[in-house]
Amino acid sequence: MSKLVNSVREAVALAGLKDGMTVSFHHHLRNGDFVLNMVMDEIAKQGIKDLTVNASSLFDVHAPLLNHIQNKVVTGLAADYISAGLGRAISQGILDKPVQFRTHGGRPKDIATGKTPIDVAFIAAPAADAMGNCSGKYGKSACGSLGYAYADAMYAKKVVVITDNLVAYPLQDWSISESYVDYVVQVEAIGDPKGIVSGTTQITRDPVGLIMASHAAKVIEASGLLKDGFSFQTGAGGASLAAAKFLKDIMLAKNIKGSFGLGGITGYMVDMLQAGCFQSLLDVQCFDLKAVESLRTDPRHQEISAMHYAAPGERSAVVDNLDVVILGATEIDTNFNVNVHTDSNGVIMGGSGGHSDTAAGAKLSMIIAPMFRARLPIVTNQVTCISTPGKDIDVLVTQGGIAVNPAKVELRQRLLEAGLPVVDIHELKEKTERITGVPRKLPHGERVVAEVIGRNGDLQDQIYSIR
Amino acid sequence: MSKLVNSVREAVALAGLKDGMTVSFHHHLRNGDFVLNMVMDEIAKQGIKDLTVNASSLFDVHAPLLNHIQNKVVTGLAADYISAGLGRAISQGILDKPVQFRTHGGRPKDIATGKTPIDVAFIAAPAADAMGNCSGKYGKSACGSLGYAYADAMYAKKVVVITDNLVAYPLQDWSISESYVDYVVQVEAIGDPKGIVSGTTQITRDPVGLIMASHAAKVIEASGLLKDGFSFQTGAGGASLAAAKFLKDIMLAKNIKGSFGLGGITGYMVDMLQAGCFQSLLDVQCFDLKAVESLRTDPRHQEISAMHYAAPGERSAVVDNLDVVILGATEIDTNFNVNVHTDSNGVIMGGSGGHSDTAAGAKLSMIIAPMFRARLPIVTNQVTCISTPGKDIDVLVTQGGIAVNPAKVELRQRLLEAGLPVVDIHELKEKTERITGVPRKLPHGERVVAEVIGRNGDLQDQIYSIR
Repeated sequence: MSKLVNSVREAVALAGLKDGMTVSFHHHLRNGDFVLNMVMDEIAKQGIKDLTVNASSLFDVHAPLLNHIQNKVVTGLAADYISAGLGRAISQGILDKPVQFRTHGGRPKDIATGKTPIDVAFIAAPAADAMGNCSGKYGKSACGSLGYAYADAMYAKKVVVITDNLVAYPLQDWSISESYVDYVVQVEAIGDPKGIVSGTTQITRDPVGLIMASHAAKVIEASGLLKDGFSFQTGAGGASLAAAKFLKDIMLAKNIKGSFGLGGITGYMVDMLQAGCFQSLLDVQCFDLKAVESLRTDPRHQEISAMHYAAPGERSAVVDNLDVVILGATEIDTNFNVNVHTDSNGVIMGGSGGHSDTAAGAKLSMIIAPMFRARLPIVTNQVTCISTPGKDIDVLVTQGGIAVNPAKVELRQRLLEAGLPVVDIHELKEKTERITGVPRKLPHGERVVAEVIGRNGDLQDQIYSIR
Repeated sequence: MSKLVNSVREAVALAGLKDGMTVSFHHHLRNGDFVLNMVMDEIAKQGIKDLTVNASSLFDVHAPLLNHIQNKVVTGLAADYISAGLGRAISQGILDKPVQFRTHGGRPKDIATGKTPIDVAFIAAPAADAMGNCSGKYGKSACGSLGYAYADAMYAKKVVVITDNLVAYPLQDWSISESYVDYVVQVEAIGDPKGIVSGTTQITRDPVGLIMASHAAKVIEASGLLKDGFSFQTGAGGASLAAAKFLKDIMLAKNIKGSFGLGGITGYMVDMLQAGCFQSLLDVQCFDLKAVESLRTDPRHQEISAMHYAAPGERSAVVDNLDVVILGATEIDTNFNVNVHTDSNGVIMGGSGGHSDTAAGAKLSMIIAPMFRARLPIVTNQVTCISTPGKDIDVLVTQGGIAVNPAKVELRQRLLEAGLPVVDIHELKEKTERITGVPRKLPHGERVVAEVIGRNGDLQDQIYSIR
C-alpha cells in the first residue's frame, strides 16, 4: 500500500480542490521554501480560482503569490506573519478582501475549532515515507521542527505531503503520522537549504545593540524570576541573541539551573542547554543548523506543536508557564501597545507570530528596541497597529533607558533597587524626539487591507492601505 | 499555573460528571491497574448513576465494577477485550444493555468521529507534570507505551490525568501533551507493578506448542514474505513467542533485514530488533519490562497511538502495511471465521483487541492454536461468535496439520512445495473429533449480552446470555 502519487498536479486533482476552497502551508522552510510556489503555480495552471491561502507565515520568496492574487487565483490570505516584499503589495491594496492576521497560537486554535477550516493542507516534508509519516529532522532540506504544521495535518479535509527525501516505510521518529495524510508527492527539491536555515545566527556587534542586550540581561536578573526552574524565550535577532549570551553568563556565574527554553530555537539556546542553563528545549521552529542538529540528536531538545506551544483557551500551552520572553517592536506607544505588523509608515512588514502569545503568557514580557531607527522614534503616542496590547507588555528596554509598564509597580521597584536606568515612557519618548524631531505621521488610505485578530479570536485592530 | 487538584473526588466534580455520561479508561496497567476502581468507587460515593464505561480493555482486577453494575452506577460497557472474571458475569446477564465490543482500531476511530463520545477520560499516567504532560515510560508504575489512551485524551470533553509520579514541569519526552488535559491528580499508587508488566514472558516448553511454533515459522518462511523489508506482529502467548524465536533464527541464518515489528511488544521482539531482524518497533503496548526499557532508551523503538496502529478508514494505519501476524483463537470454523470473544461454551473471556485489525491488514494472517483444549476441538462448523471474519484469515496452524483458506491458492501451493503438512480444514476437524468426540453445543440463552462491532463499524455478531 502506498499513498504516492506522480505529481503535485495529480495530488491537487485527487484532493478535489475546487474554486473557493482554502489551502494551507507551513513556514519552516522560511525564505528557502519552494513548496508554496510549486503548489500555487500548479493550481493556477489548472484554472482553479478564488482560493484562500492560510499560511503560518509568508516570506519574500513567496512573491509569485502576488501574480496569483492579480489573476484572482487567490482572493483571500490568512497568515501570522508576512514579510516586507509581499506586505508592501498588500498595503497598496492588491487584495480586495482584508488579510486575516492571527497569532501562532490563535491560528491552530481556529483551525482545530473549525473557525478557519482547511480543505487541502500541503506539508513540506524534509523526510517522508510513502504512507505520509514525515519529519523535518532528516534530509538535504532538513528544517528541524514541523511545529506549525501539526494543526494543518490534523484538521484539514485532505492532506498532501510533499518531500524531496522519500525513505523506506516506516520512517522512524516521525513528527506527523500517516493517520492524517492522504497523498504523498516526491519532488526534486522542497527548498533551498541556504534560505531554510542560516548556517549561523550572529550576536550583534553594534554598540547600541550590546547596551540593550546588557540592560535586558540585568532586567531579568533583577526581576526576581532568575532562579532555579527559570524558563525563557528569545528571538533570533542580534540583540536578542546577545541578551541570551549575557544571561547565560549570569546563570553560569550564579549556578542557576533553569527549566526550559522555548520557541523558535537558535544555536545560542542550544549552547545554554548544553551548558546546563536549561533542562530542556521545547522547539516549534529551528532557526539555524545547530538547532536542527540538536533537535535530531539530543533527547532533551523536543519538538512541540504550535498548539502545545501557544494556543489560547481553557486548557493550556507552554507559554502559560513561561517566565521571561524577549520580544521586538517596530513601534511601542505610551500605553505599551506594540506594533510588529507594520513599519512606522503603516506598511505591512511582519506580524505577531508568537509575540502576543508569549507576551500574554510570560510573567515578564520585555521589548528590546533601539530608541529610533532611521530617525523614526520607537516610542509614539499611538501605534499604527496594535499587534500586542499594552496590558501584556511589562517593560521596554532601549539604549536610552528602561521604561516599565506603570501597572508593574513591583518590577519597577526591583529595577530601581538594582540601579538600572528606569525612565518614564513619556520621558523616553521626549528624550528620543529631542534627537530625531517629532515625525509627521503619514495619513493612511481609506481601505482596510488587513485585520489583526487577537489571540483570543477578537478583532484587535485593522491595518489600512497606504496612499 | 497548575492543573493539580486535591483528589479524584475534586476532579470528578470539576469535570462536571453527571448521570448518564460516559467515562473512559485505558488498559496499559492491565491486571495491575488501580485507577479504574479508584475512580469508579469515588463516582459511586458521589451518587452518580447510569454511566457508560468505555475502556480499551477490562481485566479481572476490575471485578469491583460488577458491584457498580449491580448498583446501577454503571449501566453500559464498551471495551475491546474483557477477561474471564468479568466476562462470566456479563454472559450471565448482569447488564441490561448489551456490551459493545470494538477492535483496538475501531475504538479510537469511533471516538474520533464522535460516534462514541466521551465525557470524561481518566488517564493513568506513570509520569506527569502539573500541567498534564504525561508518559508511560518513567516511574515506579512504568508501563511503557500509552498508545490506547491517545484518542481518549484528544477527543474527550474533559481529561483527568492520574499519576503516582509527579515530575517538575515540563515533563520531557511526553506522550500525551498538556494541550488535551484539564486536571491532574496525584495519588499514592496507580497500579501494582507485578500486574502491570510481567518480569519476563516465557517461551512455551509444551511440546505441542513447540510443534505449532515450528510450523508457524516454516509457514512464514515458505510464504514468500520473509525477505528484506519484512514486517511482523505476534502476541505474548508462549507458542507465539516460540514462533518468534524460531523466526528469528531463520532470519539470522538467512541474513534477512526486516522492516518493523508491531503491536503489543515483548522482550522477544526487542531481541529481534537488537539482533538486526527489524529496523524499528512500533509499540502500542508493552508486555514486559524489557519492552518498557527498550521503549525508554532505544530510539528505534517508538510508541504509536492505537489510531496510528490500527484504525480503519480512508487514510491508513500501520496494520495496512503489515506482512505477517500470528494470532490466537478459541474456535475457528470451516469458513475460517475466528472466535476470540468467548470460550466454546459461549462465555465471554476475551475480545478482538487488535485481532480483526491486524488480520484485515496483514498480507498473511495466521492462527496458531492446538487441535483441542480440554477435549474441546478448535475447529467447529460454526463459531459461537465471529470475532474476525474468515475472509481475513489465511491459515490455521495446529500440531496436527496446517489448513489454508481455500481462497489462498498460491499460499497453499507454496506450503505444499515446502513439504509442510497441509490439510483441508474439514479433514482437520474430523481428525480432531476422532480424538475428542463431537462435542455437544450448549444452547444459549435468550438475551443478547454483547454486540461485536466489526472494525468498519457494522454489527458483526451478537453474543447471547448463557443458561
